[in-house]
Amino acid sequence: MGFELGTVLRSGILSTTSDHASVVSINLFIALLCACIVIGHLLEETKWMNESITALILGLCTGVVILLTTKGKSSHILVFSEDLFFIYLLPPIIFNAGFQVKKKQFFRNFMTITLFGAVGTLISFFTISFGAIWLFKKMDIGDLDIGDMLAIGAIFSATDSVCTLQVLSQDDTPFLYSIVFGEGVVNDATSVVLFNALQNFDLDHIDPSQLFKFVMNFFYLFVTSTFLGVFAGLLSAYIIKKLYFGRHSTDREVALMMLMAYLSYMLTELLDLSGILTVFFCGIVMSHYTWHNVTESSRVTTKHAFATLSFIAETFLFLYVGMDALDIEKWKFTSDSPANSIGVSAILLSLVLAGRAAFVFPLSFLSNLTKRNPDEKISFRKQIIIWWAGLMRGAVSIALAYNKFTRSGHTEIRGNAIMITSTITVVLFSTMVFGLMTKPLINLLLPTSPRHSSDNNSEPSSPKSLTAPLLSSLNGSDLEIGDHPLNRPSSLRLLLTKPAKTVHFYWRKFDNAVMRPVFGGRGFAPYVPGSPIEQSVHGGD
Amino acid sequence: MGFELGTVLRSGILSTTSDHASVVSINLFIALLCACIVIGHLLEETKWMNESITALILGLCTGVVILLTTKGKSSHILVFSEDLFFIYLLPPIIFNAGFQVKKKQFFRNFMTITLFGAVGTLISFFTISFGAIWLFKKMDIGDLDIGDMLAIGAIFSATDSVCTLQVLSQDDTPFLYSIVFGEGVVNDATSVVLFNALQNFDLDHIDPSQLFKFVMNFFYLFVTSTFLGVFAGLLSAYIIKKLYFGRHSTDREVALMMLMAYLSYMLTELLDLSGILTVFFCGIVMSHYTWHNVTESSRVTTKHAFATLSFIAETFLFLYVGMDALDIEKWKFTSDSPANSIGVSAILLSLVLAGRAAFVFPLSFLSNLTKRNPDEKISFRKQIIIWWAGLMRGAVSIALAYNKFTRSGHTEIRGNAIMITSTITVVLFSTMVFGLMTKPLINLLLPTSPRHSSDNNSEPSSPKSLTAPLLSSLNGSDLEIGDHPLNRPSSLRLLLTKPAKTVHFYWRKFDNAVMRPVFGGRGFAPYVPGSPIEQSVHGGD
Repeated sequence: MGFELGTVLRSGILSTTSDHASVVSINLFIALLCACIVIGHLLEETKWMNESITALILGLCTGVVILLTTKGKSSHILVFSEDLFFIYLLPPIIFNAGFQVKKKQFFRNFMTITLFGAVGTLISFFTISFGAIWLFKKMDIGDLDIGDMLAIGAIFSATDSVCTLQVLSQDDTPFLYSIVFGEGVVNDATSVVLFNALQNFDLDHIDPSQLFKFVMNFFYLFVTSTFLGVFAGLLSAYIIKKLYFGRHSTDREVALMMLMAYLSYMLTELLDLSGILTVFFCGIVMSHYTWHNVTESSRVTTKHAFATLSFIAETFLFLYVGMDALDIEKWKFTSDSPANSIGVSAILLSLVLAGRAAFVFPLSFLSNLTKRNPDEKISFRKQIIIWWAGLMRGAVSIALAYNKFTRSGHTEIRGNAIMITSTITVVLFSTMVFGLMTKPLINLLLPTSPRHSSDNNSEPSSPKSLTAPLLSSLNGSDLEIGDHPLNRPSSLRLLLTKPAKTVHFYWRKFDNAVMRPVFGGRGFAPYVPGSPIEQSVHGGD
Repeated sequence: MGFELGTVLRSGILSTTSDHASVVSINLFIALLCACIVIGHLLEETKWMNESITALILGLCTGVVILLTTKGKSSHILVFSEDLFFIYLLPPIIFNAGFQVKKKQFFRNFMTITLFGAVGTLISFFTISFGAIWLFKKMDIGDLDIGDMLAIGAIFSATDSVCTLQVLSQDDTPFLYSIVFGEGVVNDATSVVLFNALQNFDLDHIDPSQLFKFVMNFFYLFVTSTFLGVFAGLLSAYIIKKLYFGRHSTDREVALMMLMAYLSYMLTELLDLSGILTVFFCGIVMSHYTWHNVTESSRVTTKHAFATLSFIAETFLFLYVGMDALDIEKWKFTSDSPANSIGVSAILLSLVLAGRAAFVFPLSFLSNLTKRNPDEKISFRKQIIIWWAGLMRGAVSIALAYNKFTRSGHTEIRGNAIMITSTITVVLFSTMVFGLMTKPLINLLLPTSPRHSSDNNSEPSSPKSLTAPLLSSLNGSDLEIGDHPLNRPSSLRLLLTKPAKTVHFYWRKFDNAVMRPVFGGRGFAPYVPGSPIEQSVHGGD
């Protein structure tokens, strides 16, 4: 055609933040996402691979291709942005995890999870920090002060909860899944507090009052974040139940659930809380109350739409990390001393291994002491799996490392450049090698686990959606156990010996008497038999 | 708490494109969206209101509140960005319209729709342009050359297809809906070509070869955009059918459909085509083939998830336009001559009314000439509704006006400032006044229309989702008519007298013999009786 059609309009349309190059990038990225989905589907049957590693490898390959076509000038098509990660990718992943988590398992192991997530992360932080101070002292890695070393401890104590979702199966190993994933969620809150505390502390004058402040801060963050998430979930349940949205439109219900969950996450940004904790608990409350108040088609839609959004975000994330890893800018400063860089990465990996071992085994021992029933104790084999499955470091570590070591925009200082490239190396290595070996390790240590090799990774982000019945939520997905009530505990002795079960019993009583009549939930949801949706679902057969 | 918790991390997280103010804006916006949904639900029963006007008024009110609290300094919390509009908000709306449109109605009226959309838009463009040249000549509105006047013609010929979706009901008035909405989709292609052609043309030397170029350009744009959308839809159908995704994961199917639809839209940005046409036809093909190849739960999920995304985007859009309308910057230049500004707006509104009347009635007459059956003719009452329902001007007009008149960033030139404010005035007035009066007008002119006042706006973006059966798609939603085949036409005479029906007959033959065996579709979808999802859906009763 004669003149450049649309160029003028497009230059207007995309003038704000994008240009022709961004449009090309977006197209390439979406095409790669489609490729990941197709390849992931085709590799479904294999024992070793999972979707995240497929995406990571595809990202690396694309990076190599771009590196070759641009003759070494550039390897990534989108610069890693913490904004994109924390504002768009993380919320759907964590919300969906809360939405689909087996709540009974999660709350039964609540004390263990908190112990591992809070105390464990602190132990790991101290191990890695002091290990780094001690080991890096003699190496030639530029100017890194004690603050940087402590930051390294915080960065490498942040486990990757997204990767955990991929390597452990909620259906096959519910106990391990709840421990490792729950720990990952609490771990985030701890890491955020730690990282911020370190940036604000005067490290030369550490006194008890500052330590007390730190502990108080952690509790404040934990409690208010959880409360905000629970509040948002309950509010959505109450509004949808009171106004009975499904009467007019099923889309409004779904829209309201999505928007309120996202609002709770964005509010934490405003109030400086832990968004991961908030949106996780919002997901739990929404699946316990709100989900039962909406129409049947909204239930199917939310279950699968949230899982799909989370799935896309996860795949995007790993593709992104894989492609960003080859960024030539970052590697420029380390090219003159590759041995040094490999050494730093190896040391950091060993510290990650040691730091996690330093709390998993002692704390498991402590946790086992409080339990009488041998079935409830964490066996040594399970301890090994817990240790191993939490070794992956992911986008959170990268985001924190970027925040700490690229403050001035680029990595001009030698020490900073080495730290960035080492973080990328640790993330790639731990995700690929530890990730690939997790499934065989579980097969080796827990050979009796049912339906293992084939079903394990079939539904990485929403393990329930295939195996659970579509329109009911039995199988431990809700807090209550409907038909078979627990043996009625009646004495204080029981509360002391089986605190979790007793708390669970009283919670169920309270839930049935107070919460459900107000906020809805299974058995208390409004139901209009004549509504067209109900008819069409039930008449579908 | 002692120190500002999270401030450091956040300043890192949001450093790229956002800051504390953006987080506040996002929170406020999401909260307003939730308010719109709740208020829209409560106003469901009223005859006059619809969701878009609720959002527009809520946006205006918020603008006033912000204006008062910031003491007149600012009224909007997000600056209107064409990027946001064209990249994020428009695609889900148009895709969903194609996905949920009653295809039989749409293709039966295909010739009329193309006539109205292409020829009609040109007539409207010439009427408004020459009207503006003639009427604005004597007014004191700054320096506007003939190119600006022609641009005004293109800007105000762009109907708002989003608003059309809201004021007409696909279930009550399927014929009118297909005509007015279909026209809006074709209208977009015409407006884009017109607008770009005007920006590139040497207006002093208009010769026949340039006119020929322009016509060829339009056909090229129309055909390639449609082809790209159809291709993307068929590709998704083929991949999902061949690989049978549902076997492993329902999320992958949904993700692939979303990503491929969006990819087709973004590819048009790259190839300088009309994204609206592409994504509309992609939606049509996906609902005809792909939708039948996925699992039952994916069908429910896609139907409602796409409707929900479209619903959120629509509400967001009207909220946004309402809030942006009060931007103090734009009104500064017109405050010294309010009478002038009102005059320009009134003239433009009259020209919009006249321009649309100038093609609706003559073209309806022409269209009626080709039809023998009196039932198929467009009655005068229907012509009035078609004329009226397409009067709304919306975000497309605003985006084009911004592109034309704020090229240098701000509206320093007096003429440009007046044009921007007049566009906003016309958009607000036409959406609110014409929009509010559409429903009463339809009630007045077509009083026999069934289920009118209550159901009309219950499902603005997805009219099918409540009334149609959940898991089947009868009622004209697919091209075929399954059980009752048309009378077999066998002669050339029939092709000449009833071309649409004959084309439809041969299309159905071709569809059943060639297309469906390859791409799936109703009756050709893979079905595994033993899969857990099928069981649970069918066992749900």
